[in-house]
Amino acid sequence: MNELMLKEKLMADYDKKYDYDGISGERLAHRLGELAKIGITEENGSNRPGYSMEEKQAKELVAGWMRQAGLRVNEDGAGNIIGRLSGKSDHLPAIMSGSHVDSVPNGGHFDGPLGVLAALEVIEAWREAGYQPVKPYEVVIFSDEEGARFNGGFNGSEGMIGKGNMEERLKLHDAAGLSFEEVLSTVGLNAESYSTAARNLDELEIFVEVHIEQGKRLEKENLPCGIVTGIAGPCWLEFTIEGDAGHAGNTPMNDRKDAMVAAGEFVLEVNKLPGQVSNSAVATIGKLNVEPNGVNVIPGKVTLYVDIRDIYQDSRDKLVDLVLAVGQNVADKYAVKVSHEEKMRISPVPIKEDKQNLLEQSFHTKGIRPYKLPSGAGHDAMVIGGKLPVAMLFTKSRDGISHNPAEWSDLSDCVQTVHVLKAFIEEMQEE
Amino acid sequence: MNELMLKEKLMADYDKKYDYDGISGERLAHRLGELAKIGITEENGSNRPGYSMEEKQAKELVAGWMRQAGLRVNEDGAGNIIGRLSGKSDHLPAIMSGSHVDSVPNGGHFDGPLGVLAALEVIEAWREAGYQPVKPYEVVIFSDEEGARFNGGFNGSEGMIGKGNMEERLKLHDAAGLSFEEVLSTVGLNAESYSTAARNLDELEIFVEVHIEQGKRLEKENLPCGIVTGIAGPCWLEFTIEGDAGHAGNTPMNDRKDAMVAAGEFVLEVNKLPGQVSNSAVATIGKLNVEPNGVNVIPGKVTLYVDIRDIYQDSRDKLVDLVLAVGQNVADKYAVKVSHEEKMRISPVPIKEDKQNLLEQSFHTKGIRPYKLPSGAGHDAMVIGGKLPVAMLFTKSRDGISHNPAEWSDLSDCVQTVHVLKAFIEEMQEE
Repeated sequence: MNELMLKEKLMADYDKKYDYDGISGERLAHRLGELAKIGITEENGSNRPGYSMEEKQAKELVAGWMRQAGLRVNEDGAGNIIGRLSGKSDHLPAIMSGSHVDSVPNGGHFDGPLGVLAALEVIEAWREAGYQPVKPYEVVIFSDEEGARFNGGFNGSEGMIGKGNMEERLKLHDAAGLSFEEVLSTVGLNAESYSTAARNLDELEIFVEVHIEQGKRLEKENLPCGIVTGIAGPCWLEFTIEGDAGHAGNTPMNDRKDAMVAAGEFVLEVNKLPGQVSNSAVATIGKLNVEPNGVNVIPGKVTLYVDIRDIYQDSRDKLVDLVLAVGQNVADKYAVKVSHEEKMRISPVPIKEDKQNLLEQSFHTKGIRPYKLPSGAGHDAMVIGGKLPVAMLFTKSRDGISHNPAEWSDLSDCVQTVHVLKAFIEEMQEE
Repeated sequence: MNELMLKEKLMADYDKKYDYDGISGERLAHRLGELAKIGITEENGSNRPGYSMEEKQAKELVAGWMRQAGLRVNEDGAGNIIGRLSGKSDHLPAIMSGSHVDSVPNGGHFDGPLGVLAALEVIEAWREAGYQPVKPYEVVIFSDEEGARFNGGFNGSEGMIGKGNMEERLKLHDAAGLSFEEVLSTVGLNAESYSTAARNLDELEIFVEVHIEQGKRLEKENLPCGIVTGIAGPCWLEFTIEGDAGHAGNTPMNDRKDAMVAAGEFVLEVNKLPGQVSNSAVATIGKLNVEPNGVNVIPGKVTLYVDIRDIYQDSRDKLVDLVLAVGQNVADKYAVKVSHEEKMRISPVPIKEDKQNLLEQSFHTKGIRPYKLPSGAGHDAMVIGGKLPVAMLFTKSRDGISHNPAEWSDLSDCVQTVHVLKAFIEEMQEE
């Protein structure tokens, strides 16, 4: 793949009727294509880890477009790029939109870049129309959202809200053995600069993020975009099930404590739980390791991880409790030892009703049926949402595929999302 | 550990009342201790892979004891050591007893050696009593029973019955990259010599093997030894369950094809099956691998292995069919793709009623309650049993632990097993 190819692929199916009010499908396609060239992999995927030279180069490319569009551009101490357009009443808190340009290893070309370029496209449209908003407007590129390098991610958005725990971060090392600070230094940053990224949050009114859905709901509804109702907070539990290893031939069925049989029941029972707490709740056992994992040895130990999510704190936490109870039941039923460790519990971020309603209005304005859906994945809006009001728009993903070179969103859907974003930001001027 | 320690540990609990009729607990303990010194590991385990210098050294040590006991000793082309005592009617087919002296990496000191030394102890007792059997008697050390080096094992016993498929063997390589033939050459053997090991089986009447149980049945019954009713033949099935990988957050519960959930039901259902076909049947899922095995990714693929065993061909094969049906049911219920491959299917070897009855008589003679139990593991007797009548005696194992430095059998139990073996072989003279 090269720039021409991604742009051409995007343009091939594009319906030019969406080019109106100063928004240009071709410009968006061109910019997605230009970004795709940076860190392109052999399989035509994207490889721009957080705080890599590739991420830096991508940020600089977009910063150039920001400047051309008349924005004042600054980089904060966490490497976040902020392009600001003054408002008519520039003392008012700003509306901020954007996303990130880093990727997972061999990821796609939409996860991140679409949100940044959509925010910038709103500026391009305003410039063409000679429109100046009442409130200042900022386009942001957050650093290292994916966390491909240090596991964790959100280093840019956490830095901005002052959530960056530097003590913990200084202990991190990447696969090449470089410390977090050494990695920062390769892109001209350091621990001290990072701590200066924390902003006075009174300067901001709301953060609105456009992102690909990374799921199949919009595809099933045949809709270009949708309104995110909340960002699910994940809780990760590690369970260890310990039975007795033994010879698969010489241990009668009635004298076994088979950790895998107990784990089988655990998996089945956990799978039945989410519907008991809410329609948006999910629970997944994605990682499971058997020990000793020999064909002729009864498993003595199974370690498995449960990923539990919902957009509502109470139902998510209730689901966590139900999963823990299944662990206890399995321990009792199979006379195995079941222990667990909570590896992560992030609060869900519900999107406020008034913001969802305002987005709904923007959908009606643009003649798109407003469809609401939860975000199961974390985003910068989840981090910022811990401190500020947030809103989120999802663009339809093909087959729900993401973090993969096959990640795809049709340009017509991307451009319609930009129209909704623009309408929303303009409506926010009246708020 | 050293020789003195293993011997002393064995002697510590030994009840000297079992020293009668020329059988000596101390001699047995001494010999087990001497063998333990060869290839001893840091954890006091045994490391004598098949066709290694350590196995060769162990064979030579025992061959020396055989010669001292008046046996004519030969090594065949597969490295099997055969010590023969002439019978009064030396033209009759011989009674053969023994086992192996190779071990798994860091294995125990009883699995194999006990069977060889028990067979030799019978000779020592006869020598003291001046007894000569009517039928010739052979003590055998089979090469490479465990197959630690090339996966598979039974290279000695298969060579003796002419089952050695040299074409397949010549393709094998060990972990160091040495071919089967290169390994043979390190101990003075080669492919040509191996093929000469096939014996005229008319020369043999029966093979009787003493082995540790490697299970807990005898311990539960508080018995020193037991009568093996049959050697279970394993069938290994590899199943692949394919669903759809997806994001654990963005895929609703009702839109998943989770390969691990399907695998969970498979494991639970297979675990219920063995009791439906026989009391001795077992089925084990010891090895299971999830792909991509990420905490936040719905499993797209699970590969698992089912180890199915019984001592009866018909019930073992019926169990295989039931397991295959579970695969089909799971495929239908969860709309996943389930495929399988048969990796191994070895016929079980039932021990003939008349031989079990004769062993029962020997138990009564020695005042031990005759307890019958299946062998779930394969042994040289399984291979020889494909061509000749076989019988097997199990000695009680502590906690069922085997293939591990903690493997243990009390000397009193070992010696009682030798008494039963001797009685059985003497009774066989009348047959």
